[in-house]
Amino acid sequence: MDLKKVRKIGIIGVGLMGGSLALALKSKYKDIEIIGYARSQKSFQNLRRIGVVDRIERCPKKIARQADILVLASPVGAIVDYLKKLSAFCKKGAVIFDLGSVKKEIEEAAKKYLPKDVAFVGCHPFCGSEKTGAKNAKPSLYRNSICFITSKNSASFMVGKIWERLGSRVIRISPAVHDELVCAVSHLPHLSCFSLVNGVPDKYLEFTSSGFKDFTRIASSSDKLWSDIFLSNKDKLIKAVDEQIMIFSQFRQAIKKNDRQKIQSLIKKANRKRNKIL
Amino acid sequence: MDLKKVRKIGIIGVGLMGGSLALALKSKYKDIEIIGYARSQKSFQNLRRIGVVDRIERCPKKIARQADILVLASPVGAIVDYLKKLSAFCKKGAVIFDLGSVKKEIEEAAKKYLPKDVAFVGCHPFCGSEKTGAKNAKPSLYRNSICFITSKNSASFMVGKIWERLGSRVIRISPAVHDELVCAVSHLPHLSCFSLVNGVPDKYLEFTSSGFKDFTRIASSSDKLWSDIFLSNKDKLIKAVDEQIMIFSQFRQAIKKNDRQKIQSLIKKANRKRNKIL
Repeated sequence: MDLKKVRKIGIIGVGLMGGSLALALKSKYKDIEIIGYARSQKSFQNLRRIGVVDRIERCPKKIARQADILVLASPVGAIVDYLKKLSAFCKKGAVIFDLGSVKKEIEEAAKKYLPKDVAFVGCHPFCGSEKTGAKNAKPSLYRNSICFITSKNSASFMVGKIWERLGSRVIRISPAVHDELVCAVSHLPHLSCFSLVNGVPDKYLEFTSSGFKDFTRIASSSDKLWSDIFLSNKDKLIKAVDEQIMIFSQFRQAIKKNDRQKIQSLIKKANRKRNKIL
Repeated sequence: MDLKKVRKIGIIGVGLMGGSLALALKSKYKDIEIIGYARSQKSFQNLRRIGVVDRIERCPKKIARQADILVLASPVGAIVDYLKKLSAFCKKGAVIFDLGSVKKEIEEAAKKYLPKDVAFVGCHPFCGSEKTGAKNAKPSLYRNSICFITSKNSASFMVGKIWERLGSRVIRISPAVHDELVCAVSHLPHLSCFSLVNGVPDKYLEFTSSGFKDFTRIASSSDKLWSDIFLSNKDKLIKAVDEQIMIFSQFRQAIKKNDRQKIQSLIKKANRKRNKIL
């Protein structure tokens, strides 16, 4: 599909990510109509009040029938369901892309369910906020952020151009490498942080330092969203948890044996990696 | 000892903590002379240039002989060594306090080595910075921070008054409870953060989010300082590491079994604890 011929973009899941995408698209593509899906009457009223999309529909199939580009911006589990449910209703020649934070499962579902004349592009804009919901949407969310694209078809170049227009840096990698990467830098850190906070006895919570507060900010993240992500990236995450338990055990053994040199070398390794980030 | 009779305060270990204490004391107690110890000629020159203390001595025994109050501001292991080495040279009636981040080992060493006419007060001002050295010292470091005091003698009340004058909130707890507390909110978080960063393959480091950067700020902490702290709080830390491995295993099992409810309940527990901090 030619980007110039796109008239309507449908967004299923108008929360923080979908809502911000709607606002960003509206500011860059003035002639395209953005249609948002509202599951309930309440969210319909809510979306109308906030005004992040041009039109609101209560039926996702109706959106699929009209949309030149259909964006799936729900949690990973729901994206897979929509690929299945909407596949029969998509416009011929349409492009579907998603914003899910795990890619292998979604790419597999797209291959399985979508007809040949509908192209799928797996996307993961690597940004966000602890805040959720369309009310926190902002047009600048994707500016200066990374967007991973895990599909290799011709539509993926058009979708890449859209992300670049919104200010993102596009990184093209395979779904498997993507899932391993986000496991290491996002999913495991969340699991690790939840675990750490769970281990602090309640009576000591008032004595935490500002460092601890920074460190555990992500422990406030949503249980629904993150249980969904953990289960969608199950295999990579279990492997990463096992590696963490191994590294913990290395520290444990070195401390037990008073092996100062080993402890120092484990810390120095962390120093070196951390300094590479900056 | 009466605070009004204090003429000289000696500080062994004029780094970030000791240097900031010197500056804070100088601003609040104008008539007291602050004497700092410089181990090498280089650190002598350095301290003279920075000017955080009134006088610099190259011999710790000479400082012990003069000081009405002697402050041990070195790493935990060195504090224990100084208690042993300087015990025979302390002024009769002197008060010694320390700034060490682990207390049981230090309180025990003080009991073992110090003569009856020298009082010891275990202190742990619960603040700091990734920055180190006297050049980063600032008189406001202790303002609005917590200072744990783990001794119960009469000198501990005089020392408490000093900390309060410098703007700290004094919390009195036992050495064992202190060590368990700092293990939970500081030592284990450092170990956890070092472990997490160590688990990230180098090739993925460039793709870390700003959340990851916040989360892993403490992974830049000094290997010398932290190996010392880990070994000084060995028993508590090993227990805490074992608990962490257990919590990791709970997550692992729930993910393996697709037990969404269990994952959500583990995350909700972290949410609840984290919200208690704020």
